[in-house]
This record gives sequence, structure tokens and C-alpha cells, in this order.
Amino acid sequence: MGMDLGGTAIKMGIVDKKGQIQAHLQEGTKVEGGARGVLEQMAGLVEKLLGSAGVKKEDIQAAGLGVPGAVDPERGRVILAPNLSWRDYPLKEEVEAVLSLPVVIENDAHMAALGEMWQGAGREYSSFLLVTVGTGIGSGMILQGRIWRGSLEYGAELGHVKMMENGPLCRCGGRGCLETLASASAMVRRFKEKLSWGRASRLGDSPSLGLREIIEAGREGDKLCREVLEEGARHLARALANVALTLGPEAIILGGGPAEAGDLFLSPIREYFREYMGTWLLRSLPLIPAQLGNRAGIIGAAYLAQQEVG
Amino acid sequence: MGMDLGGTAIKMGIVDKKGQIQAHLQEGTKVEGGARGVLEQMAGLVEKLLGSAGVKKEDIQAAGLGVPGAVDPERGRVILAPNLSWRDYPLKEEVEAVLSLPVVIENDAHMAALGEMWQGAGREYSSFLLVTVGTGIGSGMILQGRIWRGSLEYGAELGHVKMMENGPLCRCGGRGCLETLASASAMVRRFKEKLSWGRASRLGDSPSLGLREIIEAGREGDKLCREVLEEGARHLARALANVALTLGPEAIILGGGPAEAGDLFLSPIREYFREYMGTWLLRSLPLIPAQLGNRAGIIGAAYLAQQEVG
Repeated sequence: MGMDLGGTAIKMGIVDKKGQIQAHLQEGTKVEGGARGVLEQMAGLVEKLLGSAGVKKEDIQAAGLGVPGAVDPERGRVILAPNLSWRDYPLKEEVEAVLSLPVVIENDAHMAALGEMWQGAGREYSSFLLVTVGTGIGSGMILQGRIWRGSLEYGAELGHVKMMENGPLCRCGGRGCLETLASASAMVRRFKEKLSWGRASRLGDSPSLGLREIIEAGREGDKLCREVLEEGARHLARALANVALTLGPEAIILGGGPAEAGDLFLSPIREYFREYMGTWLLRSLPLIPAQLGNRAGIIGAAYLAQQEVG
Repeated sequence: MGMDLGGTAIKMGIVDKKGQIQAHLQEGTKVEGGARGVLEQMAGLVEKLLGSAGVKKEDIQAAGLGVPGAVDPERGRVILAPNLSWRDYPLKEEVEAVLSLPVVIENDAHMAALGEMWQGAGREYSSFLLVTVGTGIGSGMILQGRIWRGSLEYGAELGHVKMMENGPLCRCGGRGCLETLASASAMVRRFKEKLSWGRASRLGDSPSLGLREIIEAGREGDKLCREVLEEGARHLARALANVALTLGPEAIILGGGPAEAGDLFLSPIREYFREYMGTWLLRSLPLIPAQLGNRAGIIGAAYLAQQEVG
């Protein structure tokens, strides 16, 4: 079983040994109930999922659980998960008690990278970086078939590399983080800023405006929307080139916005990437869209559960 | 035997199994003689070294040779070495023929990293980045005790990460490369630029002015020299923080200028590094000076020779 615990939704699925999702469901996370409440919610969802799929509890061998935050998988603890307001919580132990199943926990971006490695765009690569552009910018690194955690224990935090001095303030407290320049929310903010300067667009300012609308209007030829996407792409491409220059993964897989926007966002990323790499692009380094969408976390969690138990 | 072939000098040494240099010598590289001439020069130097040390050829088991450029160690070829004007040259084969010894070739920055791992500042770490600030900025990455080459085959090229858009033009053809902002030559250029604006310094403009003089004057309290060193340190610290955020090595070892300047350059690097890392510095990541100076390449080359042959 793969479980993807997010700040807004819990997703879970029964995944077979070949990596196919047999049944899945999703529900808004009841964060307000605290850790206890979320655990009870998860237990209920597991029952519901098993019932709807006609699967017996005994047929589930283990569960993997992805968490949005810093996780210590060996000690089974969540160190810090701001979106859930958890800190130093013994999640593995607690979930195992509630579900009566062996459980492995891991950071959600790492789970998604494992999912893409097993069943998605990463199948052909043993070392790659997965970058997901959403409200923030998440990333997970696979080196030689395994999650790379590094000495600081959270692996790749590409969203927080510093692209400039004295850049926009990030929610992490830093300045000029990539996330403040190339995330979905950064591009929406930039679009609104340009609107406020009197720039024309077929889109009006609205509180509900999201990256999806900007992509849609860009696709229909809206100049301002294209410009904003291209600016985001340029920043992202420079960060990716810097990763290629220091680490040289075999491929970079782009999820979230880039995967949804298709060529409108991917083409300028690839173009700027080649420009920034210049003479150093000694062989091709594929920049490819993710394939599993928001199922990557479930599939990767099931993969890790299978690895750890099997 | 460890050999370090540079664009300006050839260094070589007889290294015992414990990593101690038993004898060594150095001579200016006769680049103008072409590959053939350099090979003959090296053969002569080997004879001279063996003679001066009273060591028989038969007692040398193998040689490692570091080359400044892109190397394909498996095929034994130098792909591109701009400082020697070599391109796609079968160096391993040719050197083995001339020396009648098994030879391993590798990029010189990687050799230096192996040297620091074996006998220097990297002894306690299995994953670290070595950054050498000289005319350019060289770097070598050790991951889990081995050279990390990555998919682009040259490993880490930290000198060419792009720190800004439309920055100074680099000799690689790119713009805003770290090397154009934080190398010894970049800092000297910046110092002269500020002098030309009328800034005061106890140092005058002179063609022979180098980083060493700037460090010396800075140590004696020269404000302009300190300012220039601090600017370089700030750029370097941001690049190092970005490596820490994406890769998280256990340590970063700084050679060349930083190692020579001591706290005058290292302290601001550490300070800015902590600032750029902010909340993400979940545990300490030591920034430490290299220990082997320009002997790192010889020792690392001998290490690799021993590994490959032994």
C-alpha cells in the first residue's frame, strides 16, 4: 500500500508487485485534528479502500507513507512538517500501531522520485533529479538507484538554492530562493505585478487565478502570460544547469507545472538550459516531463515498502 | 608514482604505500613541443627522479597521471585539454609505451580530491567537494569514497555554475560563471577596477600583482584588499550553499587562495555560507582548508595507480 500524506489531501492506493495501482482514494487532510486525528482519518481511509477494492488486510504486506517535510526514516520520526504543524513526531511507530502493518516513512518528494524511477519517466535512468513545480518547488534526487539524502539529511532542496543576492523573500526566511522566482505561486505573483503596472492580458486579476489559467491563456497566445512563463523557465533553467554542472545526473525530470504546460514551459526551459550549459554540455542531458502526475507519491511509497519488507 | 601534468609545470613524486612522498621534482612544462615533446620530457623526468632517489624502475608498480582537462579514464584518452592544446589524444597508451609502466590517467582536480581523501583534509569524510581557487576555480567531488564523474563525464565544474544573468564573460564562453567572480584572477581584476575608480590602497597597480599580494595587504589592514576578498568570498559562499542544498556533501574542502589566505578569506566564506543556508543548515557542514597544497595531485595520482593496479 502506498500513502501520500499532504497538507491538503491524503492519497492512498493498493499497488501490486508490478507497480500498478489496483484501487485508490483521496480525501482532504483533517490537519486541525492534530497528529492523532490524522492517524484516525488514515485508519478509516485504509478500511474504506480495502472494502471498496475487496482486498483483505492480510493481503497487504506493508505500507509506505510519504510526508511533506524532513523525515528520519531510520528512526521513523518526522523531524519537521510545517504544513501539518508536526515536529519530532514518532510517526512510524504510531502508524504501525493503528494499521497493524509494517510501515516505512520518507519525505514525499523522495517518494515521488522513487515512483518515477519504478514506473514513470525515470525508468531508464539510475541517477536523476525530479523537480516538481507547484506552490513551492520540490525536488528529489536518485543516485545509482537510491534516494540521495546527503549529509544534511533532506536530500535536494532545489527550491531553496539562491539565484541572486537580495532577491525576493522566501517563506524559508532566505532571499532569492528559486522558489520565489519559478514556482507556480511566484509566476502568478509576477503576472499580477505586471498587470498592476498596466500591462495588457486577456486574463484579469482575480484571487483564484492560478498557473493553470496562465498556461491556458499563454497557449491561446496571450503575450503577458507567455512572458511570465518564460521568465520562470529562465530561472529554473539556470538552476538546472548549475545542478548539471556540479552533479551531472543522467536526466532531469520535471513534474507539476512544466509537465502540465507541455512545450509552452518545457521548450524555453530546454532552450535556456542549453544556453547556460554552453560548451559544457558534452553530451545530451534529457529534460523530460514526469509521467505519473500526483500518483507518483503513492507508487513510490509502495515501492519503498516493498523494498524494505521484501 | 604520482604525476601531475599542468599547463605550466609537471610535478612528480615517488609515493609509498602509506601515502608518503619519498622523493619529488618539478619542471616547467614544455608545451610548445606538443604531446610528443611533453612525453619525452616526462620520461626524462622519471629517470631523473628515480636516479636522485636511488630507486630502481622495477620497484615502481604503477603510475597515476593527472591532466588538466576532460579525460576518459576507461578508454585512456584525453578528450580536451585546452592548456596543453590537446584534443582526443590516446595518452594512457602513449605514456605506458614511453615509461614501460601501467598508467592510469584522470582529470587533475579529481586526482587532487583523491589525494586530500587519502592523506589530507578529506580523510574523515566519504563524500566531499574539493574546491581550488586559482587562476580558475577547479573542483572535484568524492561521493562514497569514489570520484563522482556524473553523466557529463567531467564531474563537478563548480567554476562554471552561473551566479547571475548577464554577468562577466568567462573564457568558457558563458556569462556569470563563478570563476569570473571569485577566482584569484577575478579578484585581482576587480581590485584593479576599483583602483581605477580612484579607490585608495597601499598596493599600486602593477602587471605582476597577484592574489598573494592582495591577501598580504589585506592582512596588514588594507581596506580595499579586504573588500575585494570579501566580495569573492560572498560569491563563492553562495555557490557552496547551493551545492550543499542540492547535494549535501559531508564537508567542503577549500584549496588554493582560501587555504593560503587563512581566516581572511575563510571566515567571510563561512559567515556568508551560514547566512545563505539559513534555516536549511540542519546540521553542521564543515568548510575546511585543504592540507596538501600542490602535492595533492601527486598523492592522489599515486593513490589511483595503487587502486587500479593493486
